[in-house]
Amino acid sequence: MKKNMTPVRGMKDYLPNEALSREKVRNIITRNYTNAGFSKIETPALENLDILLGGDGGENEKLIYKILKRGDKLKKAAGDLDKIADLGLRYDLTVPLSRYYANNKNNLELPFKVLQMGSVWRAERPQKGRYRQFEQCDIDIIGEKSSYAEIDLLANSAKTLLDIGFKNFTYRINDRRILEALAEYSGFSEDQYSAIFITIDKLDKIGLEKVKEELISKGFAVEDVERLEPILMLQGTNEEKLTQLREILANSEQGLKGIDELSYIIERLKHISMTNPVTIDLSLARGLSYYTGAILEVKARDVAIGSISGGGRYDDLTGIFGLKDLSGVGISFGADRIYDVMMALDLFPKNFSQTGTEVMCVNFGEESSDTLLPIISELRQNGIRVELYPDEAKMKKQLSYANNHNIPFVLLLGEDERKNNSLTIKNMELGEQITLKQDELISYLLSKR
Amino acid sequence: MKKNMTPVRGMKDYLPNEALSREKVRNIITRNYTNAGFSKIETPALENLDILLGGDGGENEKLIYKILKRGDKLKKAAGDLDKIADLGLRYDLTVPLSRYYANNKNNLELPFKVLQMGSVWRAERPQKGRYRQFEQCDIDIIGEKSSYAEIDLLANSAKTLLDIGFKNFTYRINDRRILEALAEYSGFSEDQYSAIFITIDKLDKIGLEKVKEELISKGFAVEDVERLEPILMLQGTNEEKLTQLREILANSEQGLKGIDELSYIIERLKHISMTNPVTIDLSLARGLSYYTGAILEVKARDVAIGSISGGGRYDDLTGIFGLKDLSGVGISFGADRIYDVMMALDLFPKNFSQTGTEVMCVNFGEESSDTLLPIISELRQNGIRVELYPDEAKMKKQLSYANNHNIPFVLLLGEDERKNNSLTIKNMELGEQITLKQDELISYLLSKR
Repeated sequence: MKKNMTPVRGMKDYLPNEALSREKVRNIITRNYTNAGFSKIETPALENLDILLGGDGGENEKLIYKILKRGDKLKKAAGDLDKIADLGLRYDLTVPLSRYYANNKNNLELPFKVLQMGSVWRAERPQKGRYRQFEQCDIDIIGEKSSYAEIDLLANSAKTLLDIGFKNFTYRINDRRILEALAEYSGFSEDQYSAIFITIDKLDKIGLEKVKEELISKGFAVEDVERLEPILMLQGTNEEKLTQLREILANSEQGLKGIDELSYIIERLKHISMTNPVTIDLSLARGLSYYTGAILEVKARDVAIGSISGGGRYDDLTGIFGLKDLSGVGISFGADRIYDVMMALDLFPKNFSQTGTEVMCVNFGEESSDTLLPIISELRQNGIRVELYPDEAKMKKQLSYANNHNIPFVLLLGEDERKNNSLTIKNMELGEQITLKQDELISYLLSKR
Repeated sequence: MKKNMTPVRGMKDYLPNEALSREKVRNIITRNYTNAGFSKIETPALENLDILLGGDGGENEKLIYKILKRGDKLKKAAGDLDKIADLGLRYDLTVPLSRYYANNKNNLELPFKVLQMGSVWRAERPQKGRYRQFEQCDIDIIGEKSSYAEIDLLANSAKTLLDIGFKNFTYRINDRRILEALAEYSGFSEDQYSAIFITIDKLDKIGLEKVKEELISKGFAVEDVERLEPILMLQGTNEEKLTQLREILANSEQGLKGIDELSYIIERLKHISMTNPVTIDLSLARGLSYYTGAILEVKARDVAIGSISGGGRYDDLTGIFGLKDLSGVGISFGADRIYDVMMALDLFPKNFSQTGTEVMCVNFGEESSDTLLPIISELRQNGIRVELYPDEAKMKKQLSYANNHNIPFVLLLGEDERKNNSLTIKNMELGEQITLKQDELISYLLSKR
C-alpha cells in the first residue's frame, strides 16, 4: 500500500526558503531580547498531564494531544479512557514557564527576564492561519511590579518588529482595572465581567453595532449597554482619553490606579523614539483571564487579521503551582502569524530567504578539486561562504545549480589556471568573468560584498 | 494536592546558562553548514503512525510515544489498543526527512544539501546521558553518488567541532562493502552479517577478547572468528591498511570498490588541513542497517563515551516511501551528547554561557530614567547590549543583579550627571568608575569590547 507523504493534517513541512525566513525572524527576536538582558530557557515539549490540566488554560485544555501510556501501565489502563494517557504535548509556553519557575526558583534571581521559543500543539480543526503545530515566542519579566517592565517589553518589541521588516503597526494598550471599573460604572455586576469583556474585545473586528447586538442577545440590560457605549467610543489623544477617564472613574480606586499606571507608561514611552503609534483602546481585553493590570497588543496595519503580538501583566502566574503573588508581565509573538502576515504583505526583503553561499567552485574532477580543497578551507577560515559542487557534472548542470541557489559567483579552476596559480571568477548576475591570482581571491570576494 | 514540579522523567529543563551553551552550539552548526551551501528545513514533531512504523527504524519503532485519537474517533477505538492512537512523536530525523523529500521533491533540486535540527522522543528507560527527549542535528547530501559528498561532510564537521571547542577528536572511517567482503572472506554467510557487525562494532569499547567470546557464544565457528581476528587488528597507517586489504580482498569486486572509495576519500582529505586524525577502523559498523557505503564516526578523545557524531552513505533512504535508488550520505550530531561531553571535559570557554548585557543602567527613578531611555535606544541602535534595571530598587540590589549576571559595566545617571550632560560608568571587575560626557558613551563602550 502506498503511504500518504503529506505531513500530519494542520502541520507543515517548511521548504528551505521558508525555513530560512523563519530562522531569521527567530534570530532577530533572540538577538534583541538577549541583548537587552533576557535569558533564553528551554523546557520539554511534553509535560505530565496533571500539570497541563486544571491550570488557567481554559478552552485550550480541551485541545491537548495526549500521549498513550506504555507497556504494562497501558495494559492496566486499557478500557478506561480517562486513565489511558499520562503525558501531553504543551498547548502554550505559559504553563511550562510557570512549572519551570516553580521547579528552578532556587537557581533563578528576581526579576527574571526570560525568553522562551518553541512549538506548541493544539488538537483543533485546522483552518487558514490556524495550525495544529505552531511556534510561540514568549518574553516575560517575572517578579517585577514596576511599570518599567512594560516599557522594557514595549521598547524591545518595537525594535524587534522593525528589524524583522514590519513598517506599519499600532500598539493598543489598556488595563484590566480600567475595564472592570468601566463595567462597574455601567451597572454590570462582577459575575458578568468576563462575558462582557469577551464581546467588547471584538469591537475592533465586528464594529459597535454588532457588539451591542451581541451584548443584548447575551441578556444584558439595554440601558447598561448604552451607558457603556460612549466610553468605548472615547475619542481624542491618549491624554484626552485619560483625562475623560479620570472624571468618569473618579470614584473607583482600582480604576484610578489603572489610569495612573497607563498614564505613567504612556509618558515614559515619549522618551523613546517609538516610530509607530501607541494608542489607548478601551475595548482591548484579550480574553485571557489571568491579566490583572496592563493589557498590550500589536496590530499590523494594512492587513485584515493583524494581531502579531500581545500580552499583559499578571499577579499570579505561578499561582496554580503554589507560588502566589508573583507579579510579572509578558508578551508573546505568534511566530507563525508573523510569517503569514509578512507573506501576505510581501514584507520579506528579497534577499531574506536566500542561502548563504557566495561562491560555488565548479568541480572539474580530482586534480582541480585537490587544488581547490585547501583554497576552500582558507576561504571558510576567512568567513567566506563557499561550496564545491559535489561531482564532476556537466558545466551546464553545475552552473544551473548556482543559478537556482542565487549564488553570485562561480569559481573555475581549469588546467591553465592551475599552471598559472590563477583562478577565473564568473559573476553570475552580469555574466562577466575575470581571472585572478589565487592569493588575490579573498580580498576580491570581500570587496564584492 | 501539591503537584510535582519536576519535568517529565527523562526530559530536562535548561537553565539560562545551559540553554545559552546549547544555542551557541546550534548556531555554530547552522552557520558552518549553511555557509557551505546546506539548506535548513523544518518538519513537524508529529507524524502519522503509519509513517513512523514499518520503516527502517528497527528497535526504535518500539519506543514511539503514541498520541491518543481525539473525540468520536477515540470513543470508537476505545478498548482496541492497536487502534487507539493515530499519531506519534518522531524518534529520529531520518524518517521525517525521507517523507519530506518524497512529499516535496518537485520543489527540491538534486543534489539536495540539507540540515535539520530538532527534538526527538524515545519512550525508554532514562539513564545517565540517555534522555527521553533529546536533540538531533542531521546533515545530508541527497542524490549524490560522488565521494565529494563524504569529503564535504567531513571537512565541515571538522571545522564545526573545532569551532564548538573540541580539540582532540578522531575520525573513524570504514565502508560497509569492505565489512561484508571481510565477513565473506572469513567464511561467514550473508544471513550472519548483521549479527557479526553488531558484535565487532563493540571492539572499541569491550576489546578483542570480549568480541571473540561474544561471537563464539552467538554460535559462530571458532575458526571463522579466528580468521577474522588478524584483519580486525590490522596495524599501520591508512595506506598500509589499504594495501593489506587489497591483497586480502583481491577476489571481492564489492570489497575492492569499497577500498577504492575509501582510498579516494583519504587521499582527498590530505588536501584539507584536518587538524585531527582520520583513521580507517575495520570494526566500525554503527548498527544502522541502511548504510551501504562509507561509514563515519567522530570520537572525542579523553572521555569514555566519546562518540559525538556519526553517519554514512545509503543507497535507499527514501526506499520505504517509494523513491528507490536515491543515493546520499548523511552525518548526525547528537547535540545533547555534545553538551554532555563538553561539560565532562570542561570544554566550554568561560564566557560561552554568559548573557550578553554589556552595560546595566541603574534605575534612579522617573527623571533619571526618562533621560536614560533615549540613550538606551541609541546604544541599542549601535548594537550595544544594554538594559535598565526595571525598578528603583536599593543600589546594593541593583549592583548585585549586575554582578550575578556578569555584566561588565554599570551606568549611573544621578542628579549631578543630569545637570552636566554627563554619565558615570563603573567597571564592575576593577571597581573603578569614571565620568564621561553623554556623547562619548558609545565610543567608550565600543573601545572596551
